[in-house]
Amino acid sequence: MDATALWQRYQKWLYFHEELGLYLDVSRMRFDDAFVEKLQPKFEKAFADMAELEKGAIANPDEDRMVGHYWLRNPDLAPTPELTQEIVDSIEQIEVFAEKVHTGGIHPPKAPRFTDIISIGIGGSALGPQFVAEALASDFPSLGIHFIDNSDPAGIDRILNHLRNRLASTLVLVISKSGGTPEPRNGMIEVKKAYAGQNLDFANYAIAITMPGSKLDEQAKSESWLARFPMFDWVGGRTSELSAVGLLPAALQGVDILAMLEGAKQMDDATRIPDIKQNPAALLALSWYYAGNGRGEKDMVVLPYKDSLLLFSRYLQQLVMESLGKEKDLEGNVVHQGIAVYGNKGSTDQHAYVQQLREGVPNFFATFIEVLEDRNGPSSELEPGVTMGDYLSGFLQGTRQALYENQRDSITVTIPQVNSRTVGALIALYDRAVGLYASLVNINAYHQPGVEAGKKAAAAILELQKQVVKVLQTEKTALSIEEIAQKAGATDKIEAIYKIVRHLQANQRGVVLQGDLGQPSSLKISVS
Amino acid sequence: MDATALWQRYQKWLYFHEELGLYLDVSRMRFDDAFVEKLQPKFEKAFADMAELEKGAIANPDEDRMVGHYWLRNPDLAPTPELTQEIVDSIEQIEVFAEKVHTGGIHPPKAPRFTDIISIGIGGSALGPQFVAEALASDFPSLGIHFIDNSDPAGIDRILNHLRNRLASTLVLVISKSGGTPEPRNGMIEVKKAYAGQNLDFANYAIAITMPGSKLDEQAKSESWLARFPMFDWVGGRTSELSAVGLLPAALQGVDILAMLEGAKQMDDATRIPDIKQNPAALLALSWYYAGNGRGEKDMVVLPYKDSLLLFSRYLQQLVMESLGKEKDLEGNVVHQGIAVYGNKGSTDQHAYVQQLREGVPNFFATFIEVLEDRNGPSSELEPGVTMGDYLSGFLQGTRQALYENQRDSITVTIPQVNSRTVGALIALYDRAVGLYASLVNINAYHQPGVEAGKKAAAAILELQKQVVKVLQTEKTALSIEEIAQKAGATDKIEAIYKIVRHLQANQRGVVLQGDLGQPSSLKISVS
Repeated sequence: MDATALWQRYQKWLYFHEELGLYLDVSRMRFDDAFVEKLQPKFEKAFADMAELEKGAIANPDEDRMVGHYWLRNPDLAPTPELTQEIVDSIEQIEVFAEKVHTGGIHPPKAPRFTDIISIGIGGSALGPQFVAEALASDFPSLGIHFIDNSDPAGIDRILNHLRNRLASTLVLVISKSGGTPEPRNGMIEVKKAYAGQNLDFANYAIAITMPGSKLDEQAKSESWLARFPMFDWVGGRTSELSAVGLLPAALQGVDILAMLEGAKQMDDATRIPDIKQNPAALLALSWYYAGNGRGEKDMVVLPYKDSLLLFSRYLQQLVMESLGKEKDLEGNVVHQGIAVYGNKGSTDQHAYVQQLREGVPNFFATFIEVLEDRNGPSSELEPGVTMGDYLSGFLQGTRQALYENQRDSITVTIPQVNSRTVGALIALYDRAVGLYASLVNINAYHQPGVEAGKKAAAAILELQKQVVKVLQTEKTALSIEEIAQKAGATDKIEAIYKIVRHLQANQRGVVLQGDLGQPSSLKISVS
Repeated sequence: MDATALWQRYQKWLYFHEELGLYLDVSRMRFDDAFVEKLQPKFEKAFADMAELEKGAIANPDEDRMVGHYWLRNPDLAPTPELTQEIVDSIEQIEVFAEKVHTGGIHPPKAPRFTDIISIGIGGSALGPQFVAEALASDFPSLGIHFIDNSDPAGIDRILNHLRNRLASTLVLVISKSGGTPEPRNGMIEVKKAYAGQNLDFANYAIAITMPGSKLDEQAKSESWLARFPMFDWVGGRTSELSAVGLLPAALQGVDILAMLEGAKQMDDATRIPDIKQNPAALLALSWYYAGNGRGEKDMVVLPYKDSLLLFSRYLQQLVMESLGKEKDLEGNVVHQGIAVYGNKGSTDQHAYVQQLREGVPNFFATFIEVLEDRNGPSSELEPGVTMGDYLSGFLQGTRQALYENQRDSITVTIPQVNSRTVGALIALYDRAVGLYASLVNINAYHQPGVEAGKKAAAAILELQKQVVKVLQTEKTALSIEEIAQKAGATDKIEAIYKIVRHLQANQRGVVLQGDLGQPSSLKISVS
């Protein structure tokens, strides 16, 4: 396509949201009008599905749940006045609480102010708060935030070690919808122990964000924790950033959460329009469908040219992959859907893997995120007429062009600056794009049946470990792995038993392996 | 495959390096013996290629360079005594320098000790040092390190703002092989200005890591910087972690760099063995080839179950994708090679995208990194017989099993703990696996021709910006974008001009856009 035609195409497809100052450019996705026309009926259905969902239809039939994250940004849309009121109340509760923490109205027993936050949560209870902290917290936020987003003992030790002199002024958020997810539960137990180790009463520091009535909620209530905030049944983890899950840590860090909600609301309004060209989420869904033939044949590489948006791709990884990565469609046909997402930031990633993007396997499309404002305040010139921000801008344009020349497609999202409103808008834009795309390919975006198998398998390993230890303690003699398996009645789990005893030995748990470590069958295992 | 056969297969393929305590398990890559036999001749060539490379053959013909990163770990292998001596000297220079910084023998003009490091570098000059800092620095390292790895003004402002009260005790590393890469050069200019702003003489804080004779080297010499360390012509950016690029920042943070080098050397020795089954790098290359049919058809998902290894996948992203992502093979045939790499850490990522890995598009294989030691010191039990580390271990096993049941292949690398030796070994393992795989698919792993196009396009944008501003200043009247393009003699670059003026306006650079921002053709542009 020559430069003139390309410029025409650019203008024809350019989407602009005036209030948000947000642009979306899909001109470098090389679909034609016939393709768009062909998808029109699917989009009509997608728009209708979305309208039903917003009205409170059971959009997640597997879990018999409504899908209501859009109501968080516009409580008047909630299907009942009671729900509307619950949402409004929860936001007010967050605002009031954060204000009291900032002014010292709520303070730790032995200090005038809280200084830090430990946030314990995983998946949707971590990725949104991490993204927002990196994007929006000021350089010296009211409270510094530290995330425990795993079940790694060494990782937890590092955080607790860093905070050892400030634990007495550190709030702890425990974020878990059901309260039953092992990682946050484990994290909570170890953190609680650290408070006890400093003779601090954990309840004076701890806040639960969970479903009313959950195990975690009951614990927080019975132990008289500092506060409890509700997670709603109708908000999934990966779309919970604009619920208490994301809003409370953001507010505590001094982020303007009302502006985040407002930005998301404006984007929700814009993405409700049942017209592909006037709806930026539809344009994204269209582009994704085009790129991967509606079957996820291309990876989505996300490149924000702005350090503070580094974690956006990790946030999107969950939102997109957990929502779209499904074995079956709504009719139960096996489809193996999904779109793989990765990326860090530009221009940094140009020096990591743009070599492959430009020349290598053409198995991706790129999404550039452009931020028009270079920095807060003016820039001096590095050379006559050129600032550092001009370089960054030139790198983005140059890379986009170099990819296009080699038939690598890209989308560009442009925002005026990284602020609470635009971040809220980005979250809402992708929430909706994922929802629409799921309709296009006829899958349920709101469940995650595939996660269970791994959880069950992990639980079985822990059970097996107990059996193995029992066998070893009972036998009191050195056994081969095969013998342990027989005595534990688990001859189909020899390999798992080997891994278990190897891990126990490495951690001085009273299990000893003797023999050639490279030859598992040669090993004799005993308890010390 | 039933449990017994699988256990046989596990043992048959299990690789164990006794000194390093490192295991590699490729039993869940479902290749058969016939496949291995078929690849045998390719491997023979790969082993021979590697031996030539290690002897100093020009392995990067495009750039007429030797490829010598293996010599860094075993200087006696370098092809001349002079090179051997240079390597030995550079390591000693690093050790001596770091020691003096730690003891205060080298200190800032107005303080007894340096407290922090700003490391300015991008790509290979950042990813290795970042990975190692996260993996190996102690919780309270001798010097805290802060990375400027981009050309983002806001990102630099954030780091300088954090350090504003400690700038007088902050070392600056400027890492750039040629000294000509814009990002580190830009970063250096802005950081230098910050020092000047506090009346500090930058030269007293600045260290150059660069090729002797480069522009940066000349500047450091003429301005009498605190120190200069050499980058060698025969070490590429993405394999430079065990040169001064990685060793100096590591040593300054208190990391045992000799142990890193020793771990890498041991792994280099192990991966020199010309026998697939006895060579862990060959086993990796074999597995990658199998997974993607030697054409990168599957993405490599890297999941270390250990927080401190979070950045390993980002490090591998560059190493693998920049090395393997090539348009042409060594004969000039168009092949579009490469392997896409992504991942963060387990079990965290289980709550992000394992849903898709298990059920969705089967376009990947996984690499689990297992660390046997849970933490430094004993763990208390969360419930009878079960510690937090047991959970993490169970999650890894459970996920691996759940993936395998759904025909998703995986590799597992097991190390006894995260320490200098094992990190050095991991780096060396993947260095070699990439080199061998490149031979298998007949490409040059040591150049990056595709990066140039984007750089040139970016430079052209900056040139165009100057022309545009000149036109606007000369004309003194409001012009449409099309008119600017005509007057600048750049009618094929209308879109780029639009982006330029939009960016200039957003940064108060004296350019004003009037009209409907959603309709680029309607805009009138003038200088204020």
